[in-house]
Amino acid sequence: MLQVNEHYLKLQASYLFSDIAKRVAAFQDAHPGREVIKLGIGDVTNPLPPACIEAFHKAVDEMGTVAGFRGYGPEQGYDFLREAIAAHDFRARGALVEADEVFVSDGAKCDTGNIQELFSTGAKIAIPDPVYPVYLDTNVMAGRTGVYRDGRYEGIVYLDSTRANNFVPELPREEVDLIYLCFPNNPTGSTISREQLTTWVDFARDSRALILFDAAYEAFIRDPDLPHSIYEIPGAREVAIEFRSYSKSAGFTGTRCAYTVVPRECTAFDAAGNRQAIHPLWNRRHCTKFNGVSYPVQRAAEAVYSPAGQAQCTALIDGYLHNAGLIRAAMTELGYACVGGDNAPYVWIDGGRDSWGFFDLLLEKAGVVCTPGAGFGRCGQGYIRLSAFNSEANVIRAMERIRQALG
Amino acid sequence: MLQVNEHYLKLQASYLFSDIAKRVAAFQDAHPGREVIKLGIGDVTNPLPPACIEAFHKAVDEMGTVAGFRGYGPEQGYDFLREAIAAHDFRARGALVEADEVFVSDGAKCDTGNIQELFSTGAKIAIPDPVYPVYLDTNVMAGRTGVYRDGRYEGIVYLDSTRANNFVPELPREEVDLIYLCFPNNPTGSTISREQLTTWVDFARDSRALILFDAAYEAFIRDPDLPHSIYEIPGAREVAIEFRSYSKSAGFTGTRCAYTVVPRECTAFDAAGNRQAIHPLWNRRHCTKFNGVSYPVQRAAEAVYSPAGQAQCTALIDGYLHNAGLIRAAMTELGYACVGGDNAPYVWIDGGRDSWGFFDLLLEKAGVVCTPGAGFGRCGQGYIRLSAFNSEANVIRAMERIRQALG
Repeated sequence: MLQVNEHYLKLQASYLFSDIAKRVAAFQDAHPGREVIKLGIGDVTNPLPPACIEAFHKAVDEMGTVAGFRGYGPEQGYDFLREAIAAHDFRARGALVEADEVFVSDGAKCDTGNIQELFSTGAKIAIPDPVYPVYLDTNVMAGRTGVYRDGRYEGIVYLDSTRANNFVPELPREEVDLIYLCFPNNPTGSTISREQLTTWVDFARDSRALILFDAAYEAFIRDPDLPHSIYEIPGAREVAIEFRSYSKSAGFTGTRCAYTVVPRECTAFDAAGNRQAIHPLWNRRHCTKFNGVSYPVQRAAEAVYSPAGQAQCTALIDGYLHNAGLIRAAMTELGYACVGGDNAPYVWIDGGRDSWGFFDLLLEKAGVVCTPGAGFGRCGQGYIRLSAFNSEANVIRAMERIRQALG
Repeated sequence: MLQVNEHYLKLQASYLFSDIAKRVAAFQDAHPGREVIKLGIGDVTNPLPPACIEAFHKAVDEMGTVAGFRGYGPEQGYDFLREAIAAHDFRARGALVEADEVFVSDGAKCDTGNIQELFSTGAKIAIPDPVYPVYLDTNVMAGRTGVYRDGRYEGIVYLDSTRANNFVPELPREEVDLIYLCFPNNPTGSTISREQLTTWVDFARDSRALILFDAAYEAFIRDPDLPHSIYEIPGAREVAIEFRSYSKSAGFTGTRCAYTVVPRECTAFDAAGNRQAIHPLWNRRHCTKFNGVSYPVQRAAEAVYSPAGQAQCTALIDGYLHNAGLIRAAMTELGYACVGGDNAPYVWIDGGRDSWGFFDLLLEKAGVVCTPGAGFGRCGQGYIRLSAFNSEANVIRAMERIRQALG
């Protein structure tokens, strides 16, 4: 008799964004004439950069010819892309990353979800609150938590991100093994300074823990003092894995390409207390359970690093940051305390009331979809997230409608 | 102190095809002038069908425009593709599959590797021998085995596929929970009859087990009496999950698209003995750890079902089957017992000697790369697999060289 993985049964309700989609669908059914502006889910809206489109087409053409056709590629990604990544995203900023430490994948969601498989089910997990739900859910599925009670899973060390700590969590007081950090942060849009990140790296080194650093929003950093990669921090290569994505930096949410960096020096321990390098473990997983990213997609990603691609991506991000600035200014003017939106596409807004209540209010009164902060964890209660991923015209209209509804 | 998943440390050596690649590279270094013909790894060599290329380009164009751009798609795949699959691949053959039971993914390797996560780590696993290594390795990683000893992992029920049973394993005598079957088979090229498959379905129903049916090579079936889908067998919807791929049917090994069917009636049990539907569990996993297949790739896959796409894919497969026929005829003529090659792209050859020895012999004497059967399990010892995935000209030359070397 086949038994299910009982841990799946602990998972709460359905995925946050599905819940939002259902409420929006119900609203649209009830008000067929009302137009809704979506500033909820963090999905880009502008087309792919022309440089990526051109490279994409060229690679599709290759796939149609005997000479140019490519079958299975290296599971870890083609060298042309891994080398471009190591050179442009890291070494150009003084962070040492070798091409063979880069694992190209079809999404940072997959990688941040799968990485925990490499570690003991007994590992003590530290997860920020509020948080991108994938970190938490994948650890629930793996059995690293107890049951869900009062809005939290037992067995997880939650790292509160609140106004008191300016949305950068403090070091945990108990022992932890695996630490999820995400900066610029989703959902709060907060950033971490070089000094703060150094404190975390030192903590991980001292406690033989590992930091899983999600830098999916790195492209939005404009403050020259902020670190773009955790590998800019001395000692991080031994205690940190970094996740990056083209989803937000180049509009690849529907095209699918991302990567994960696992430095050769990164280690965990076996039961006998010996150090085990993580790189070969991740490589084994990647080769066993993954078969590489579509070749034309990898060529489209490579084009991000061309001079034209770089200029186009910068313009794309500048546009979203301009929107974020409009949102933050409008909400601040209405008297709401805000964080984010300057080095991130998200503005985190203290609504002064229940998150889902504020969600419903914005939907009903202004026809604007936000993401309720409570969906990201207990510390998100009372907040909403507004996303800059829309056209400037829609953002202006949404803010005007919110002004009228709440002003 | 972070501990690794100790089960990873049980994994044997590296992945079979990496080992082959190393031996071939060493041979080529030692003999820079000698040309090698690869009939080893099961990777297609012909370009994508023109219908797929056309649809691929069109979708890339969409991604470059504001109106046509698509961000995150449904994790389960777009309806246009799920509906085409359900209609063409199943209902057209009298097998009932609904579109919402189809989960589009980036590879059958990923899906066959990930599916085991839904089940208890205590589940008893039945795996054919010889076998595609992914089924085994992913269960080792999950901790469902003991150590590796004498060529096998403890705790696994191996289903011997030998000449005695015509390479279709007999039902296990002990209780098992999760059964991997693959037909047309990789690596042996053997097929399963409707009657034999019915026996397996009935067995699974009687023992409350689940069959994971890998039909990645379905497109090669030419015998009208053979089942194409396990859902052609009465009762299978309650006890079987089926995996399909465009890798071999349409040359998508480097393009990446596949799908998995989880019927609504499929169940396993919770600890209390209650039936739990598997569909919502897989849906939850898919939404949490995966973000959908690249939109242009899904459009390229959809084109497989157009009249032009169907004709082009049939021609593609016919070409590979023609090659397989040449391989089987040549090896049979040389006195080797062969199976496969008629409804599958693989010919499984009894070499009458050690598999790796035969591999080295073919490489050294004929400059031909095969896959040593021993790499697929203990029952593969003494066999090699030759693959039809090459040009007709290369297959003819390879067979001529083998005739000269061994004739």
